[in-house]
Amino acid sequence: MKPIRKLKDLFETVKGESTPTVAVAAGQDPETVQAVYRAVKEDIVKASLVGDEATILNVCKEMKIDPASFECVQADDDMSAAGRAVQLVREKKADILMKGMVKTTTYMKAILDKEDGLLPADGLLSHIAVMEIPSYPKLLIVSDAAIIPAPDLEQKVQILKYTIEVANALGNPMPKAALVSATETISFKVQSSVDAAVITAMTQRKQITGAIVDGPLALDVSISPEHCAIKGLDSPINGESDILIFPNIETANTFYKCSILLARGRAASMVAGTTAPVVLTSRADDDDTKFFSIVLAARMAAQRT
Amino acid sequence: MKPIRKLKDLFETVKGESTPTVAVAAGQDPETVQAVYRAVKEDIVKASLVGDEATILNVCKEMKIDPASFECVQADDDMSAAGRAVQLVREKKADILMKGMVKTTTYMKAILDKEDGLLPADGLLSHIAVMEIPSYPKLLIVSDAAIIPAPDLEQKVQILKYTIEVANALGNPMPKAALVSATETISFKVQSSVDAAVITAMTQRKQITGAIVDGPLALDVSISPEHCAIKGLDSPINGESDILIFPNIETANTFYKCSILLARGRAASMVAGTTAPVVLTSRADDDDTKFFSIVLAARMAAQRT
Repeated sequence: MKPIRKLKDLFETVKGESTPTVAVAAGQDPETVQAVYRAVKEDIVKASLVGDEATILNVCKEMKIDPASFECVQADDDMSAAGRAVQLVREKKADILMKGMVKTTTYMKAILDKEDGLLPADGLLSHIAVMEIPSYPKLLIVSDAAIIPAPDLEQKVQILKYTIEVANALGNPMPKAALVSATETISFKVQSSVDAAVITAMTQRKQITGAIVDGPLALDVSISPEHCAIKGLDSPINGESDILIFPNIETANTFYKCSILLARGRAASMVAGTTAPVVLTSRADDDDTKFFSIVLAARMAAQRT
Repeated sequence: MKPIRKLKDLFETVKGESTPTVAVAAGQDPETVQAVYRAVKEDIVKASLVGDEATILNVCKEMKIDPASFECVQADDDMSAAGRAVQLVREKKADILMKGMVKTTTYMKAILDKEDGLLPADGLLSHIAVMEIPSYPKLLIVSDAAIIPAPDLEQKVQILKYTIEVANALGNPMPKAALVSATETISFKVQSSVDAAVITAMTQRKQITGAIVDGPLALDVSISPEHCAIKGLDSPINGESDILIFPNIETANTFYKCSILLARGRAASMVAGTTAPVVLTSRADDDDTKFFSIVLAARMAAQRT
């Protein structure tokens, strides 16, 4: 498999493949129905919309979508819709979980449920975005922009492993991962620079494998060979990162939103660390982001089989 | 004065005005000499290059620049060049300090010197960037991308005051300032969201004046009215920030570099908190950034007189 450098190419790899089933928790808002319908029509997934059947039928009618495109599973309220969708995944009747018109807290609660959720024992949930930015020549795998506020060393190592799995699923067997901080200098006043030095050392000791890892790196030398040259920086990544591990949620979230809004990028998002691929989109995501998030989940589901 | 929305417009406001004098510490590398020469030729500043006179003359010769464009002040090494340049500013023989081919630590040491530096008692140094990003309709004042690793509440309030002064110097008497975090929700697990809530409350109590302040805000609702509408967020800033106060150096630095490299922006940078405007450019800054940083310092110097 050739490395995937565009979201469109990612789409090509899953189109007409094994078509996993998505269970959508409260899949009854027009935006979600639209995105799921697009994915069904493109032969990427089959879909079970869990929610109020009458509302789903109404939405389909208004949007002129044939409700037979989906399986409908009745659920009376948001909490039971989230629980039922998770259950479908646990029972292997669905392969992917997706969020519809249910609050993120309700959705996450169902995923995190110790008895009936999708989190393995000692599991760590993390958010991963696969970003396509017109001014960057390849996809960027970014974490964690949405779930873990301030990952500690152990969590950063786990996040790194999750992103390596995603890179592998995108056809890249040896991704370059930058541990982003504010500078390349290790400063005891900047904890992220110390953490990055430790993780880089762990890679050199082969405690972490499967990626070329370097840090601390400021963003410029993570993504620009020219800036490496100007700064005289000898980095094995050399400004060609496939993965950016950010030190805290503010930095990752700001990078994500700056890339989307100011650099005109787009993204696919997922939750890592669960027993099945989980799609977690936000209200402010555009149609493409919702669609490509389903595509990414389908790719990750194919990787598991 | 009309609000300045482009760096070029900032340039127009200082061209042919009072022409303050820049003292350049170790002003003997081609890039710095070039940027200073451009500013002198454009009638923005006069310049004293402090450094090894023979080297300066050589650089001028190689670059076909008339050395009479500058005053030259002999200094035998970097440390004394930095000290002598600071002294020129202290003696009012210069109005602006600028960094040439001297290490940042040496430069900062001269500025921070308790006896002979440029820092008032109880002063706080901070970094401010004025950014022009093609996809954003006005200038963005950004802090702190380079000096304070993790500002506490008191420091954040001081940084906010510095950025308000810069906005005023750019002709904006009542800027909109966003306190950036990862979400709009206040979470006890995300300290920056708590800090932002406190500072916003201080504004409502009129302990901070001169700006419309709101936070915590994620970046998207700080800079996009559309995202405010989608999220149903009622913010007095409404996605039209003039100022972005970031919670830590990693976030600010990443935003700065993402905006420059991926969103094709450019910037002018300065150090705030000193007794005179200070230019602190980095090796990786392009020619425009170096030039516009001198322009910004000239504007700030004019504001003080």
